Amino acid sequence: MLKGNLIFGQSGGPTSVINCSAAGVFIEALENSDRIEKVYGAHHGILGVLNEDFFDMGQEDKEELLLLKQTPASILGSCRYKLADPDDDDTDYQRILEVFKKYNIRFFFYNGGNDSMDTCNKISKFLQEKDYECRVIGVPKTVDNDLFGTDFCPGFPSAARYIATTVMEVYCDSVVYPAGQITLIEIMGRNAGWLTAASVIAADKGYGPDLIYLPEIEFDLDQFTADVKRIFEEKGKVLVCFSEGVQTKDGKFIPELAGEVKIDAFGHKQMGGAAAILKEHIENNINTKVRGIELSLMQRCAAHLASGVDVERTFEAGREAVRAALNDETDVMIGFERVSNDPLKIELTHFPLAKVANTEQKVPREWINEAGNFVNDEFIDYCLPLIQGEPQRIKEDSLPRFAKLKFVQAGEK
Amino acid sequence: MLKGNLIFGQSGGPTSVINCSAAGVFIEALENSDRIEKVYGAHHGILGVLNEDFFDMGQEDKEELLLLKQTPASILGSCRYKLADPDDDDTDYQRILEVFKKYNIRFFFYNGGNDSMDTCNKISKFLQEKDYECRVIGVPKTVDNDLFGTDFCPGFPSAARYIATTVMEVYCDSVVYPAGQITLIEIMGRNAGWLTAASVIAADKGYGPDLIYLPEIEFDLDQFTADVKRIFEEKGKVLVCFSEGVQTKDGKFIPELAGEVKIDAFGHKQMGGAAAILKEHIENNINTKVRGIELSLMQRCAAHLASGVDVERTFEAGREAVRAALNDETDVMIGFERVSNDPLKIELTHFPLAKVANTEQKVPREWINEAGNFVNDEFIDYCLPLIQGEPQRIKEDSLPRFAKLKFVQAGEK
Repeated sequence: MLKGNLIFGQSGGPTSVINCSAAGVFIEALENSDRIEKVYGAHHGILGVLNEDFFDMGQEDKEELLLLKQTPASILGSCRYKLADPDDDDTDYQRILEVFKKYNIRFFFYNGGNDSMDTCNKISKFLQEKDYECRVIGVPKTVDNDLFGTDFCPGFPSAARYIATTVMEVYCDSVVYPAGQITLIEIMGRNAGWLTAASVIAADKGYGPDLIYLPEIEFDLDQFTADVKRIFEEKGKVLVCFSEGVQTKDGKFIPELAGEVKIDAFGHKQMGGAAAILKEHIENNINTKVRGIELSLMQRCAAHLASGVDVERTFEAGREAVRAALNDETDVMIGFERVSNDPLKIELTHFPLAKVANTEQKVPREWINEAGNFVNDEFIDYCLPLIQGEPQRIKEDSLPRFAKLKFVQAGEK
Repeated sequence: MLKGNLIFGQSGGPTSVINCSAAGVFIEALENSDRIEKVYGAHHGILGVLNEDFFDMGQEDKEELLLLKQTPASILGSCRYKLADPDDDDTDYQRILEVFKKYNIRFFFYNGGNDSMDTCNKISKFLQEKDYECRVIGVPKTVDNDLFGTDFCPGFPSAARYIATTVMEVYCDSVVYPAGQITLIEIMGRNAGWLTAASVIAADKGYGPDLIYLPEIEFDLDQFTADVKRIFEEKGKVLVCFSEGVQTKDGKFIPELAGEVKIDAFGHKQMGGAAAILKEHIENNINTKVRGIELSLMQRCAAHLASGVDVERTFEAGREAVRAALNDETDVMIGFERVSNDPLKIELTHFPLAKVANTEQKVPREWINEAGNFVNDEFIDYCLPLIQGEPQRIKEDSLPRFAKLKFVQAGEK
């Protein structure tokens, strides 16, 4: 029966529930001190391992660890460090092995999206080749919702709830004046349009976009302009939600189109973002007030609007990661399977890392309308149950109370 | 004892609690049917009066009227129509008198900021000159918080709570990577910096801006750059909150500085807003990742984060407007007086419209630090009590449930 120490790291862009996973891992691990002696939190993901920069989570108060459930953005710090392919350069892997040996790390948990699952997978294979016994578990996280297999990715439901709520509110604001107005809302999602699709829930409630553009569908600027013009002529107001990642048929992102609409001065600098570029473009084509809005970081860090389903399931996934490792599972990512939609019932499940690492889950074509400018009810049936529930929230002065950790250094940084 | 009909209109930029005033006016007025026979809601503010375009609020369900307390943005529609000076051109005033006579309007309530109070005042004087008896009451509203006399303006506390919460969350997100980052947050406020100042509450909680720039202080681009550089060298991360309305000593707004930072292509089109311009400028001066974030419409329509104090006091101010009118008061704006800070006790009071209309309330110089790049504790003592309290919120599918009105046409549009 494998015993030893555990290290957990957070990677990639944060979410408003990323620390729910951390809370689940830490609390479950600390409750299993017969098998797991020390519980470490890596500072800035895998960099914390490479640099022997990590914290002793056993020194923290349990109440503060529980407050991680309402604290947005990687509490341990994140990184965007990409490990080389070990066949090309195994320096980092050798170093990880050295650190794992030095601190008797027998449980390695990594929290992130596609790239992080790939990192997990490569590390695990390397350790196996070197006959170093270690349970490696991927803990999913990404607002992009594009991880293979799992019903949803932690972070997505909360961001979707933020988007649906915010679009409803912005809709109300955007229609108050008698004069026409066109409002363009830019939503995160480089390759997959899950988050942007969530705006259809606002439309379903009667306060939402007229048009929705996802990266799954080729973006045609002329068709887009014609769509907006048509709705503008019909209704005098247009609300558009679009993914930052929409691309034309020759693979150009919107900021790259800027040249064509004569704003070459910025080149590919993405100055002001896609919303500003499309705003300028529509202003040049339709004579009315146009507003461009970027939901920016808010959509991924608005923990005050986190979904109860997301918070609780994500916390449980963290705990499950520990249980799986103690059960001698390795090379898996914890995920979710929906066994019933009404009432929502989501069970924890495990996916082989190898499969997760190389597959990207996009919004199915049949959930998008034929014209490619709106989202179908199938998406609502999928998404609406996920954004339900109000998690418990401890406040201070009617403001969020985030976890205050001691961050007791444990590695010989 | 004056009897007759009442008309209420909403004007200017909406807020997340503007309909709390409407709910207060409608509910109190409908409870006084012995004096007020018909309660009308003007479509698009004063334009609704001029065009005989208004609704019979007596036809609405009371539960839906109460849901106005959680429905953001002018439910009746707003306008930015400015009445001429009656000495120059009294066409609109003659028309208003004609409509008031036709519909026996004896109570006119107008909900808005400085300009709307000026409109109220001019209409009231004109009606008096024509010996038409009518009670004219101003109902305050503005996220800008710049109305004279009143302790606060309805809408400000909720926007301030949104800003404090959002800045706390964005702070968490902005510090996760080991690499340096500079985050610039643009906040509403053309002439007064109240909203931007509210970001200091996030700093007070430990998750806030390093630098705060208000329109009350002359904006010096070089000093700003030097401030950001200094903090960046000290900490590696910088969070800046600034008002969209900051101006240089020669009266230029940030988008007008764009020429100087070589983005002439856009002229004064305010492409991408001030945040994008300052982002470009800082990128040219400091070699690190820079993010520009506009809180855009969200800060004034995020009813899901409305302050309980704001919702309840604003609702009461609406009721008070009716009570004052029935008490034969006229030419006043309803406002608030703080009689105790801890615990917060705010009483309803009345201010002469003439005085309100011509005075703008700015953030006191002594509430801003000497260097003009941060806000003092006096502001926190003023603002923090206002953002307290969680109003009751009825939800549907974990999303806001906005009031659904019938809008029964009553004017002969």
